[in-house]
Amino acid sequence: MSYKFLIKDLNSQKEIGTDKGLAKIGDGIVNLTYSIAKSIFLTENSSTILRTGIKVNKTILSNALKNANMKNFAKNRADAHDLANTVEAIIAFVFLNDKMTLNEIIDFLKDNLIGNIENRTQEIKYASIAFTNLLIHIKKFLPEE
Amino acid sequence: MSYKFLIKDLNSQKEIGTDKGLAKIGDGIVNLTYSIAKSIFLTENSSTILRTGIKVNKTILSNALKNANMKNFAKNRADAHDLANTVEAIIAFVFLNDKMTLNEIIDFLKDNLIGNIENRTQEIKYASIAFTNLLIHIKKFLPEE
Repeated sequence: MSYKFLIKDLNSQKEIGTDKGLAKIGDGIVNLTYSIAKSIFLTENSSTILRTGIKVNKTILSNALKNANMKNFAKNRADAHDLANTVEAIIAFVFLNDKMTLNEIIDFLKDNLIGNIENRTQEIKYASIAFTNLLIHIKKFLPEE
Repeated sequence: MSYKFLIKDLNSQKEIGTDKGLAKIGDGIVNLTYSIAKSIFLTENSSTILRTGIKVNKTILSNALKNANMKNFAKNRADAHDLANTVEAIIAFVFLNDKMTLNEIIDFLKDNLIGNIENRTQEIKYASIAFTNLLIHIKKFLPEE
């Protein structure tokens, strides 16, 4: 079934980027898709199979929103936590609006991962880039203002 | 892409049901798919749009494993927390093995929800039934021992 009716009240960048329920759904999407992308990436670059589930750091997501020049989706005077919620809400909107499937988000993140992400500092750097690229990719699916 | 290579080392019921990394991925799948199913169910039975993201209670998942007669996937002397992890691992296995998509899991849970799940006690009862039905449905995709 289509889930578009779950977002039909959200028509502007700010309505999407500041919706709390949407951000909660997006939190689940971000953590799940990144966890699977990371598991694939680590397994492909190792001799053993690695399965992992993690919570994506707020810094990674707030960096991505800034780097993609999409802070206008967030509320005024937003802190890093607010900016991360905005990224989560945007990603949930795109999924619920049938613009990207969850598998497409997993594959996109995995294709955009590089570096030694088992190192925490490196992971923050390279995951920020992967999420920046995802936001730039999905900008065309979002309202223009 | 197919994610089957992420589970090719898991061949028995116990290997699947006791794998910690798989359970972590499954935790994300369970929480996300149930959150969207609940959002759809509540929105369809209300005059307003409701979007919610929640963590599925361990009691719901351990009930489901017992009701579906699938405790043999869990470790010996498993407590409720272990049983819930086993459910999460099983669901992740079925998804990674291309047997159900995430949207199919969302739709299945939504189609199996009934009752007044805004009431906490009722939600535990009816969500347990929905997850029991899901486990019974996916039993055919799992090893026979």
